[in-house]
Amino acid sequence: MSRISEATRGVYIISPTPFTDAGELDLDGTDRLVDFFLDKGVDGITILGVLGEAAKLTSGESDAFMKKVLKRVDGRKQVVVGASNPGTDNLVRFAKAAMDAGAAGLMIAPIQGLKHDEQVFGYWAEVLQRLGPDIPVCYQDFPQTTGVVTSVAVLNRLIDSFPNLVMLKHEESPGLPKITALRAASADGTRRRVSILVGNGGLHLPQELRRGADGAMTGFAYPEMLVEVCSRFHAGDAEGAEDLFDVYLPILRHEQQMGFGLAIRKEVLFRRGALRSAAMRHPGPKLSKADHVELDQLMARLERRLAG
Amino acid sequence: MSRISEATRGVYIISPTPFTDAGELDLDGTDRLVDFFLDKGVDGITILGVLGEAAKLTSGESDAFMKKVLKRVDGRKQVVVGASNPGTDNLVRFAKAAMDAGAAGLMIAPIQGLKHDEQVFGYWAEVLQRLGPDIPVCYQDFPQTTGVVTSVAVLNRLIDSFPNLVMLKHEESPGLPKITALRAASADGTRRRVSILVGNGGLHLPQELRRGADGAMTGFAYPEMLVEVCSRFHAGDAEGAEDLFDVYLPILRHEQQMGFGLAIRKEVLFRRGALRSAAMRHPGPKLSKADHVELDQLMARLERRLAG
Amino acid sequence: MSRISEATRGVYIISPTPFTDAGELDLDGTDRLVDFFLDKGVDGITILGVLGEAAKLTSGESDAFMKKVLKRVDGRKQVVVGASNPGTDNLVRFAKAAMDAGAAGLMIAPIQGLKHDEQVFGYWAEVLQRLGPDIPVCYQDFPQTTGVVTSVAVLNRLIDSFPNLVMLKHEESPGLPKITALRAASADGTRRRVSILVGNGGLHLPQELRRGADGAMTGFAYPEMLVEVCSRFHAGDAEGAEDLFDVYLPILRHEQQMGFGLAIRKEVLFRRGALRSAAMRHPGPKLSKADHVELDQLMARLERRLAG
Amino acid sequence: MSRISEATRGVYIISPTPFTDAGELDLDGTDRLVDFFLDKGVDGITILGVLGEAAKLTSGESDAFMKKVLKRVDGRKQVVVGASNPGTDNLVRFAKAAMDAGAAGLMIAPIQGLKHDEQVFGYWAEVLQRLGPDIPVCYQDFPQTTGVVTSVAVLNRLIDSFPNLVMLKHEESPGLPKITALRAASADGTRRRVSILVGNGGLHLPQELRRGADGAMTGFAYPEMLVEVCSRFHAGDAEGAEDLFDVYLPILRHEQQMGFGLAIRKEVLFRRGALRSAAMRHPGPKLSKADHVELDQLMARLERRLAG
Repeated sequence: MSRISEATRGVYIISPTPFTDAGELDLDGTDRLVDFFLDKGVDGITILGVLGEAAKLTSGESDAFMKKVLKRVDGRKQVVVGASNPGTDNLVRFAKAAMDAGAAGLMIAPIQGLKHDEQVFGYWAEVLQRLGPDIPVCYQDFPQTTGVVTSVAVLNRLIDSFPNLVMLKHEESPGLPKITALRAASADGTRRRVSILVGNGGLHLPQELRRGADGAMTGFAYPEMLVEVCSRFHAGDAEGAEDLFDVYLPILRHEQQMGFGLAIRKEVLFRRGALRSAAMRHPGPKLSKADHVELDQLMARLERRLAG
Repeated sequence: MSRISEATRGVYIISPTPFTDAGELDLDGTDRLVDFFLDKGVDGITILGVLGEAAKLTSGESDAFMKKVLKRVDGRKQVVVGASNPGTDNLVRFAKAAMDAGAAGLMIAPIQGLKHDEQVFGYWAEVLQRLGPDIPVCYQDFPQTTGVVTSVAVLNRLIDSFPNLVMLKHEESPGLPKITALRAASADGTRRRVSILVGNGGLHLPQELRRGADGAMTGFAYPEMLVEVCSRFHAGDAEGAEDLFDVYLPILRHEQQMGFGLAIRKEVLFRRGALRSAAMRHPGPKLSKADHVELDQLMARLERRLAG
Repeated sequence: MSRISEATRGVYIISPTPFTDAGELDLDGTDRLVDFFLDKGVDGITILGVLGEAAKLTSGESDAFMKKVLKRVDGRKQVVVGASNPGTDNLVRFAKAAMDAGAAGLMIAPIQGLKHDEQVFGYWAEVLQRLGPDIPVCYQDFPQTTGVVTSVAVLNRLIDSFPNLVMLKHEESPGLPKITALRAASADGTRRRVSILVGNGGLHLPQELRRGADGAMTGFAYPEMLVEVCSRFHAGDAEGAEDLFDVYLPILRHEQQMGFGLAIRKEVLFRRGALRSAAMRHPGPKLSKADHVELDQLMARLERRLAG
Repeated sequence: MSRISEATRGVYIISPTPFTDAGELDLDGTDRLVDFFLDKGVDGITILGVLGEAAKLTSGESDAFMKKVLKRVDGRKQVVVGASNPGTDNLVRFAKAAMDAGAAGLMIAPIQGLKHDEQVFGYWAEVLQRLGPDIPVCYQDFPQTTGVVTSVAVLNRLIDSFPNLVMLKHEESPGLPKITALRAASADGTRRRVSILVGNGGLHLPQELRRGADGAMTGFAYPEMLVEVCSRFHAGDAEGAEDLFDVYLPILRHEQQMGFGLAIRKEVLFRRGALRSAAMRHPGPKLSKADHVELDQLMARLERRLAG
């Protein structure tokens, strides 16, 4: 079974969870969404994150959606499963179920309320130890949502202590120096160099790649851009990668509005045929007429740039 | 079926959820805990709140514990069921299941992230409307945990708009003036006077009763004190109520340490025979040897004071 | 004396405060900075904001810098003076001193800790009343720094109650719908239409102008772009405005990193000759070698785009 | 000149700043306040803290009040001066001025926004180094106000690195285990044992003394109780100390309401003749009629308990 590892790179798209207009889990629409992402060339799909509205699902719904995605992907690409949970017992239970079902690894964010280094380390030590050395974990480092700021010192200590911590989903912001510090810490070969995939919609992707990131694990309604940017960069064409990125930057920045942006992203995915409904579950933002008009304009501008 | 209402008063004890030392839900130990509370004379039991570690349970565990408690209580007293949920669809689903199983009402706290008055009102309008007029709701007003501060203006607007909002679990702190303002707002008889039960371990209970609270909905390991204080107060003996309260205040204040206090409370309930294990699920505080010694001293001091 | 008003539009650049490398207030370097901004065509200069590190100045330093800027500008353009203060007595004292010295108006952000609508309104009612009807005020609406979220309802109530509230520095983020809601609220002519200038480095400036903003009051190291974008937009060329904006967007986004971005902005202003030192007072971010290299690249890319 | 040191113990009362009803600094009323505290037997006075509304004073007012207090005390007891400041340059400037004027040491809280251990340590390293080894510092550890949580690891590292860090004003809450951990860290004699004085109104003073605190640095309107409790405890009568404490606990708990409590404290000090006005500067809480009645009752109950 293919697993994420320190060597993982490329684009792992964060997938929304499809709902019907009435708010029901749209299991039937899942295949279409999976196909859309695979068609755009992503290296993997990450489900049940913040964009996936994971907290609004019952345990049973999470389980059903996870299995449905894994079945459709059917091993063609890796699937990372979000397993963050306020309680560690159920985190571990669901995590093991996901791995048994064929997940390539887990994405976990720390619980809210962890303040100083020892608290952050202590939480992860418990989680990583309970999961055991065979389950690879991606650390979602997203203080804007969790309130937990993880120092480079703590990350290095965790990397040194737990071989199953193989990846960082880097989305502290501002966070460019953090990538540099992490890469410096493994530069002499004595410390493991873990995979770093960036989040935040990829708002600083070219800079992050130049500083040592290996790709992106983020939501963005045009995954083909992320794929091509990483591809060009890994082929040595950093400037060409950034040129393409800059074409999409206006709409990317628009999508990357905390909270509100999820509704925009679902709407674009709906317009592009990836979703059968743009609905988010309550509570969540809804687009007004003005929001739709604005999005029309930005999408049209993008098309003109791409055409010309 | 008995339901909570605007006329509800007295003591609704917030119940912990019993776990085994290994962290499993201790369904078998539930009857003992229920019996302890009923034996102390409480008017009701509230389950699946913060003290109940509700966020650390799966949907299935919450359901099983809720039904077990309702079965043991068997209509002798009212049971209020915590139904807070990041997603409204599943909040409503569980809430209706609880009412169908015999709950007397729901305790709900607003989701995190609501900032200004319109956001708070809008959230509740959706929730209260979806629940419908027949399901009585207790508003858990606990900004220390949710980060949501609810103004008196919003509360009054909700009271005026939704007859199923019948009770406030008041635990904004400091919050004494808020009780006075709420009571003033219904003083002339044109606005419904809802039930106000106070939380925060009852740290300011005598003052809160004098300002118009109807009782307490809180955790405290000596519920008999809360019951007797409310009883004396309602019998017109405010000073006698406060005299008794002050005897317990040293240990009450000790238990009322945010977060850490839950572990102390479970330990006292364990020592008093109400729980078969003081264990909290991870993540949660654990008592050290120094913590135990300190608790020994405070419990011994209380016993000496009670002995006269 | 020229004052800001509801009719104010265009670009009010937020000015940093110049320090020497040793951290002393660089009063001698102030003229050069003022000249730079005026040379770029701004409509006004706003001093002593967050970017101006106002909280790190003594009362005496603030006073000296304010007077120095006013003297150099000498009435050619408007100067708005930041007067936010944890205490209202000294806020009013400094505000009046600034107006006496020739300021065109004040920029004030609410104190931290205001939670619900009534608290926000109450704070402003006190401040605006003490200042009196003759001192025009710009409301800095920046919850990312203050923690205070101001609803449209509160803003409208303040606009209706206090004629000296003439301008909103809009930088709640995400915040596009808020502009639309504010403009809708004055659309029928019964409510005053105040000036809205946007902050956040202008990250969404084209969208904000389309929704009804009148310009920008923000820091950005290339003020000439902001000036030209507003100019094109006000001349009816919205698409041309956005075309120019998009050329600068990559570096604008880079500068618009909360906290860290201030150091980048001062560095670019230093490189462009506007500042004699890029130093910020402690505590504040410092650019590393990697940060400098990255900035080199982004500035070079901008120059190529502008050249080509 | 007498300085605070690792050996300091007893009660350092946190002093409010007296204002007139009109909000002017009441320098003339300062002597009376100082005399009140000295008369109650305190070991020192700490000025310009949160209770002292320091953030609402201009640089000039802080300077004047500091000198007035030092002059009245005239070396009879130690005066600790609050020097917290968003900017380090002016922090150091004022700190040195205070020491030159006769202060026994400084009380400093970290700036807001420090998240992980390295950030907290880095801030303090800069501050303590700039102050130099001859200026003794008390670390105000008050995350409820600053948002900065300081780990025991950071405190120990600072103690090991900077001999001028001689005292901790401990008011993280809950915080009892922290005292135990700090004392354990110096138990074997290899690390300096610094002075620990507790804050939070002394809400857990008996428990804190038993765990190794050396006294209290806090505001409380009945300082004579704090003095007597510490005195009994240091004389070996821990139970007698706690007996006395418990008598005052009801009103102490009432005063210890975050934010709101400052107004109550000033009112009690006014009633006891220590202040000529209970006024706080705007913004700040004001007592209503209901608040006054409630305070009447609590003060009367205390008097009855003391009378026996």
